Amino acid sequence: MRSIDLNCDCGESFGAYQMGDDEAMLGIVTSANVACGFHGGDPDVMAATFHIAKDKGVAVGAHPGFPDLAGFGRRRIPFSTGEIERMVAYQIGAAQALAAYCGHKITHVKPHGALSNVAMEDRDVARAIAKATRAVDPDLAFLAVAKSALEQAGFAERLNVVSEIFADRAYTDRGLLLSRNQEGAVLHDVDTVAERVLAMVSEGALIAASGQRIPVPIHSVCVHGDTPNAVAMATAVRAKLEGAGIRLKAFVEA
Amino acid sequence: MRSIDLNCDCGESFGAYQMGDDEAMLGIVTSANVACGFHGGDPDVMAATFHIAKDKGVAVGAHPGFPDLAGFGRRRIPFSTGEIERMVAYQIGAAQALAAYCGHKITHVKPHGALSNVAMEDRDVARAIAKATRAVDPDLAFLAVAKSALEQAGFAERLNVVSEIFADRAYTDRGLLLSRNQEGAVLHDVDTVAERVLAMVSEGALIAASGQRIPVPIHSVCVHGDTPNAVAMATAVRAKLEGAGIRLKAFVEA
Amino acid sequence: MRSIDLNCDCGESFGAYQMGDDEAMLGIVTSANVACGFHGGDPDVMAATFHIAKDKGVAVGAHPGFPDLAGFGRRRIPFSTGEIERMVAYQIGAAQALAAYCGHKITHVKPHGALSNVAMEDRDVARAIAKATRAVDPDLAFLAVAKSALEQAGFAERLNVVSEIFADRAYTDRGLLLSRNQEGAVLHDVDTVAERVLAMVSEGALIAASGQRIPVPIHSVCVHGDTPNAVAMATAVRAKLEGAGIRLKAFVEA
Amino acid sequence: MRSIDLNCDCGESFGAYQMGDDEAMLGIVTSANVACGFHGGDPDVMAATFHIAKDKGVAVGAHPGFPDLAGFGRRRIPFSTGEIERMVAYQIGAAQALAAYCGHKITHVKPHGALSNVAMEDRDVARAIAKATRAVDPDLAFLAVAKSALEQAGFAERLNVVSEIFADRAYTDRGLLLSRNQEGAVLHDVDTVAERVLAMVSEGALIAASGQRIPVPIHSVCVHGDTPNAVAMATAVRAKLEGAGIRLKAFVEA
Repeated sequence: MRSIDLNCDCGESFGAYQMGDDEAMLGIVTSANVACGFHGGDPDVMAATFHIAKDKGVAVGAHPGFPDLAGFGRRRIPFSTGEIERMVAYQIGAAQALAAYCGHKITHVKPHGALSNVAMEDRDVARAIAKATRAVDPDLAFLAVAKSALEQAGFAERLNVVSEIFADRAYTDRGLLLSRNQEGAVLHDVDTVAERVLAMVSEGALIAASGQRIPVPIHSVCVHGDTPNAVAMATAVRAKLEGAGIRLKAFVEA
Repeated sequence: MRSIDLNCDCGESFGAYQMGDDEAMLGIVTSANVACGFHGGDPDVMAATFHIAKDKGVAVGAHPGFPDLAGFGRRRIPFSTGEIERMVAYQIGAAQALAAYCGHKITHVKPHGALSNVAMEDRDVARAIAKATRAVDPDLAFLAVAKSALEQAGFAERLNVVSEIFADRAYTDRGLLLSRNQEGAVLHDVDTVAERVLAMVSEGALIAASGQRIPVPIHSVCVHGDTPNAVAMATAVRAKLEGAGIRLKAFVEA
Repeated sequence: MRSIDLNCDCGESFGAYQMGDDEAMLGIVTSANVACGFHGGDPDVMAATFHIAKDKGVAVGAHPGFPDLAGFGRRRIPFSTGEIERMVAYQIGAAQALAAYCGHKITHVKPHGALSNVAMEDRDVARAIAKATRAVDPDLAFLAVAKSALEQAGFAERLNVVSEIFADRAYTDRGLLLSRNQEGAVLHDVDTVAERVLAMVSEGALIAASGQRIPVPIHSVCVHGDTPNAVAMATAVRAKLEGAGIRLKAFVEA
Repeated sequence: MRSIDLNCDCGESFGAYQMGDDEAMLGIVTSANVACGFHGGDPDVMAATFHIAKDKGVAVGAHPGFPDLAGFGRRRIPFSTGEIERMVAYQIGAAQALAAYCGHKITHVKPHGALSNVAMEDRDVARAIAKATRAVDPDLAFLAVAKSALEQAGFAERLNVVSEIFADRAYTDRGLLLSRNQEGAVLHDVDTVAERVLAMVSEGALIAASGQRIPVPIHSVCVHGDTPNAVAMATAVRAKLEGAGIRLKAFVEA
């Protein structure tokens, strides 16, 4: 029997501001990428998220982003690779300490928003993230989109690379994400998304918008936590995978 | 032959804003308390500080403060003890990660500004800082003013407590710091300060403004890094101690 | 026929973070207190709020708070009265400029959260807010809780003081708000709240929890915009007042 | 007898962090561009700056920048033109209010750092700044580098455009600033700078690095306030101009 991980972003609330339904999502996924206070999250939100994740047996990772709360880490701010190394190291360490404070443990790293988007294509930025991860703890798993520059950087730094697919994003024939400003880039129908995830996981391949298959290793499926139907979609994806006899399980033992 | 540690706050610059002369101070002290980005410092400043400290063989500690850059961590913001635990844990972790990134290692914790001032007297706040330190890493040394609530909290949490005296602050007969808004609270004359430090270290006692001696363990002497004559005073204190045959040495092996 | 104003806080979202349902609330109230970017709000949220308010004919005021986004302006940070004067002036000016940019106009000032709570009782802080308001524009109306130190400060600075009552907060026999940590301090039942508002407006008196009447001038009724049933409660209050032939109308012509 | 304005950036300190010697610079220049709290400055620093400027008879302008204290407004963050309009309007308004609080008056606008650099060449960004200025107050003078897109935008929005030259920056034959990463882009010799300023002002022309003259209107000379020899250079420029019988005078009556 095969198993697979289901991951989502969590802990992105800030002070009195709520983002997503962490409590619900942490009842569905097997790994959570927890914001570290730069694009979202704060020490109290982080600790609350780690506590819930621990209670529910969900593995946790650091989810570093650009220091841009006002832009939710989505603006492409021109930081140098050295600055990126240091902001990533800082955030991983902060997450490790708060996870320890909650009796939990950070076991992976996955970048957020613009930092992630840039790292998909820019080898130097990708390498900076991988280097910072290795410098802080070489045993951290490195969650990266299959076929991205980020994944390559993880291999180059000899990290434990975990390849993920996106549940609700369309792919090009080259296996890249269709840009969000293109028609059909984001899939909204819950059943379509769940069926497609099962097909990709079963076939071990990305399914492009054209229908073409691009074989890739798939260790994790990313579902979003901050869209209106996030909980329904994550529930459907999980149910569809379990219905096909695929076990949901974190890629790293927590 | 006795030895003693000399500590000062460092890494409190922020972006384009300079604070103190870290390069010079790190050539004099044996332990540095490095700001963690909340009241001062940022990931780049932190890393630069850790690099210099490593080059000069100076031990480094996390110097967590209130999240109040505009107030330089000096405002007594009414955080709950839970919030304090989490902000301290977060900052220690961030410092640990950036120290590792620089090939150095955080070996102690010392709170900053208003967080420190509150912890001198408030047992619950003091305990929160000690708890957070223990949760992140029970091997961290805990640098605390002799006879303060902070020192007591360190003992209660079974941390390796290191007791410090202030080079340039006057003491009351009960061994407490004279409040800054009192006449004579801060000593400015370099020679007087150096002489008094040597006397306190040699006698193993605080010397109150009245001349009274209050015996305490003294493991470290704190010199300030952000006053106009900081470098001159630290140099004089070090020279006076060395001239008396007392070796300057970090309390923890880096 | 009498008329009365209905006011609520608006524009407290920040970047990707939503707070309250401004679109709905601005369809009900006649005056909006718009956050100025310190405890909530940002230039884009402010402009969006002013645009909607203008479209709906709602008068707008500056709603300055402490610079504490993480605490949503609810922490009692010990600022000096001089600092408070300057942070209030800054925020009023920013709101005036963005209102002008949207073709609207700031016509009143009402402090937020901890700044407001302190100003209810502390004469110096209340005076600082009134002074800053007068310094920026002496024609601004000054919205203050009836019988508070803030209202007194408005009179002392010869501002156009507008007295408000809270729709859903219980009063003591002295006409003060019952502290939030006391049983029954906040009223949750929509019908009860609407009835009580009508009674207070009709009688020109606060109605204490004991039933006692405290005659006060009432120019405006404050409804909350960030509670779960905010829209339902504001709708009910408005309907009840209109049903009694009381016209809803801003205290200042926009 | 001709007269000319001398302007510099001021009020860029933040909390405990000092930047430049405002007290000295405000004794030399005739117009000050005051940071508005986004890239530097805070309400207390702004008010202190306005007080000194008023005392010394120096005209004051708003100096809006990107919301990037950590980068001192020097990072080219990809904001939309709408976002730029709103952040500029916000900052102008804040400065107006604090100037009024100090009994002074904002009479011009000049963008800072990356916002200014982008506006030199990008017509849309330049137009956004001019539009925001006009929306807040069409009587504000608009201080722009001669021959830049910013100057053009000021004309297009029918603002009172004031053209400035830089005392210590080299020009290309097209009258543009030589990029800072090119050899000789910044002039450091005080006497050379003072001589060149006098020549440009006297001839009514930019003097390119090649020696070529490019005739432009010159209403103001910009000197820097945050370089190590800022005070010496500003003093020399002023003395040289006055020695040639040119009167130093703000372009707008304060």
